[in-house]
Amino acid sequence: MSDVVAAIESYLESTAEERLDQYQAFLRIPSISALSEHATDVTQAATFLAEAMSAIGLENVEVSPTDGHPVVYGDWLHANDAPTVLVYGHYDVQPVDPLDLWVRPPFEPRIEDGCIYARGAADDKGQVHLHLWAARAWLETQGRLPVNIRYVFEGEEESGSVNFDAWLERNRRRLTADLAVISDSGFFQDNHPAITIGLRGLMYAQIDVTGPSQDLHSGTYGGLVQNPANALARILTGLRQPDGRVAVPGFYDEVRGLSPAERAEFARLDFDDAKLAADIGVPELFGEPGFGSLERRGARPTLDVNGLWSGFQGEGSKTIIPAHAHAKVSCRLVPDMDPARTFQLVRDRVLADAPPGVEVDVWLINDGMWSLTGIDHPATRAAAQALEAVFGESPVYLREGGSIPAAASFGSVLGLPVVLLGFTPPDDHAHSPNEFMRLDNYEGGIRTVARYWEILGAGLG
Amino acid sequence: MSDVVAAIESYLESTAEERLDQYQAFLRIPSISALSEHATDVTQAATFLAEAMSAIGLENVEVSPTDGHPVVYGDWLHANDAPTVLVYGHYDVQPVDPLDLWVRPPFEPRIEDGCIYARGAADDKGQVHLHLWAARAWLETQGRLPVNIRYVFEGEEESGSVNFDAWLERNRRRLTADLAVISDSGFFQDNHPAITIGLRGLMYAQIDVTGPSQDLHSGTYGGLVQNPANALARILTGLRQPDGRVAVPGFYDEVRGLSPAERAEFARLDFDDAKLAADIGVPELFGEPGFGSLERRGARPTLDVNGLWSGFQGEGSKTIIPAHAHAKVSCRLVPDMDPARTFQLVRDRVLADAPPGVEVDVWLINDGMWSLTGIDHPATRAAAQALEAVFGESPVYLREGGSIPAAASFGSVLGLPVVLLGFTPPDDHAHSPNEFMRLDNYEGGIRTVARYWEILGAGLG
Repeated sequence: MSDVVAAIESYLESTAEERLDQYQAFLRIPSISALSEHATDVTQAATFLAEAMSAIGLENVEVSPTDGHPVVYGDWLHANDAPTVLVYGHYDVQPVDPLDLWVRPPFEPRIEDGCIYARGAADDKGQVHLHLWAARAWLETQGRLPVNIRYVFEGEEESGSVNFDAWLERNRRRLTADLAVISDSGFFQDNHPAITIGLRGLMYAQIDVTGPSQDLHSGTYGGLVQNPANALARILTGLRQPDGRVAVPGFYDEVRGLSPAERAEFARLDFDDAKLAADIGVPELFGEPGFGSLERRGARPTLDVNGLWSGFQGEGSKTIIPAHAHAKVSCRLVPDMDPARTFQLVRDRVLADAPPGVEVDVWLINDGMWSLTGIDHPATRAAAQALEAVFGESPVYLREGGSIPAAASFGSVLGLPVVLLGFTPPDDHAHSPNEFMRLDNYEGGIRTVARYWEILGAGLG
Repeated sequence: MSDVVAAIESYLESTAEERLDQYQAFLRIPSISALSEHATDVTQAATFLAEAMSAIGLENVEVSPTDGHPVVYGDWLHANDAPTVLVYGHYDVQPVDPLDLWVRPPFEPRIEDGCIYARGAADDKGQVHLHLWAARAWLETQGRLPVNIRYVFEGEEESGSVNFDAWLERNRRRLTADLAVISDSGFFQDNHPAITIGLRGLMYAQIDVTGPSQDLHSGTYGGLVQNPANALARILTGLRQPDGRVAVPGFYDEVRGLSPAERAEFARLDFDDAKLAADIGVPELFGEPGFGSLERRGARPTLDVNGLWSGFQGEGSKTIIPAHAHAKVSCRLVPDMDPARTFQLVRDRVLADAPPGVEVDVWLINDGMWSLTGIDHPATRAAAQALEAVFGESPVYLREGGSIPAAASFGSVLGLPVVLLGFTPPDDHAHSPNEFMRLDNYEGGIRTVARYWEILGAGLG
């Protein structure tokens, strides 16, 4: 054990009580960003965080306004030639309903059996807080950080990050960095240390099929006009093959194949299809043939209908031919797909399938880039080394199916490699009642981050 | 002109003012059956009607209760060996919104330019009222009717006739008749006299596709599970060919083909496809190849989606895989299709198309029989003769695309041939603002019905 590691360990052991008190005080603020009645709570959480950051010696600390809830910024930039890391987390939390399913009130944190229970304990206040203590341990014991760090803590992640890109754009000149580290993810099943190296991108569109100027009587007009709902069903059917493959011409052209090494890494991960099917209540899993479940989720693109509406939706019968029919359709994207090109391909296919007698429109609602920072990337390797040193196991590498808006933004707005290094337990009940963080993961997280900075401080690759 | 005709004509001319006063008094009662705040108005209209029936000498007049609004019954059964006719109409009316589009208040009838404007003037109070005066003219001038008549006036036709079949079942023993005459239809375009000889039947079902026990994140689960909305689209697509033909195996097996004479009758009717397309706001009409528009509407079965819903229907994007997806699907049926068998065929096809990973259910919501009383049926021939005598033109024969619940019930519950003899002008704005009846049609209707009874009194074929 190096002197630095020993000093940090000693410091963290002697401050455990103060740390948990502060963690719980942070959790007591109900900073639910999606609910306007909690607006002052969100502001209070931002202030609490900023004060904690200033107190440990971070500089340029600022509660930085957006059109919604503020971003809390702070930095420490005295590590000279060492790399600069942009650290991202969020201090807002999910709503808590249904409240009656919480065993303990969501904003009265309790520590039981080595876990801390509260809304935000895992997602993401716990991870924001452990970053502060990793920095504090370095600053208190060494008087310095081994890397330059810019902390960016968002207040709207749980309500769609709608103002975050604009804030990034406005602040891009002061956000120069070599690497972004996002701590908003977690460990793999059985609480195995993990690094998320990839996220999928998104293309989200709407299809509108317009027929008669108003709903028509299905007796008087049945047999005379194209039915927009039947037409929409046919259009949607043309987008996917029965086996789950996407049927849009050119859709797979830019998809990067999986190398044998990548397939081996996926194969190394245990994944129980039958258990997941039972957990989510489906008779069996389903997806593109030729790939395992984790490959389909992490490394293969999809096309899903997210919503559908037309005509009569009530009880009983109403004999109409609907005037119009609509669908929300989205694709999850993987390297090297371009969201704009994917939209064009889907649009072309839909319009080519438009039947006579109706008008069909397709429009983009939003999109976002995928991200992938390979296992061999120096920043990934350093994170793996830190995790193994603290948790005693080499991490697994995950490619997640979803998107984290900030990750896409750091990649596409700032052009940074992104490492997703998070510490929440896999069964943390994030977004659900009875959210919790394991204290082992939290304390190990502090030590891992402290070690990660030390390794990165020796140079990025 | 026979003595009877001359006497009836003279009587009707001398009573025109009293008749229109009574007609308008009937129209002033806002008997909207679908709106509970008008319940006492519906009752008042029933009482008004029953009193008018008693006053002219009809017998056994009764405001007969149902689980909803009452049926008004009355009869005159002293024509000995002459046929017995069951006459049907309804005294309830449609709602009037949007009220601001009415040029005159809907329940303050006005006579202008030979038309009477009010809600119910055409559909169907005007036609109920003309039946009363046809009977009154006979009874006042001849002291008898030439046929036996049972009048059945419903109070829930505009709210789905939900209690009518049960009433018919309860009263079937006293409803013995040889023929049902329904006056709830109208003349053909350019106000040409018409007899509606056919109506289509109905089979209305719901399809439920059930996937995961709750909506899933489309990133985390996209590629792992069958999507119920995609699955529903594929199921619906399997029910119809792109050209509009129904793709359900066996669907057309029982469909009675059109004879050359029937096709000639359809061909005789002017029908302007381009005008209809423009009126309803579609780029072009669409339907089963090989048949004209009126044939498709009157004599060919259909399959239409009436409603569709699944997942997210709001503004913007929500990245979910919906837990379930639903469709309302109905078929219009023609001779000799059996609604129950049609449901089984559709159900079989849907279940055969059910993909892996979801559960699919299909259930019948309601159905109704088609009806067809041929051009050569004696009751149709007699109606044609009466129309031609009064209006000076031989009628056209229509097969309508919709269903009239009462027509199906008289056919299936009572086993009667049904003649649809109605007098409303084709542009009567029924169900819309500014509904009206042409007084020529109304007065001619009285004379036609009086003549029809005379012809039928000579014997049914």
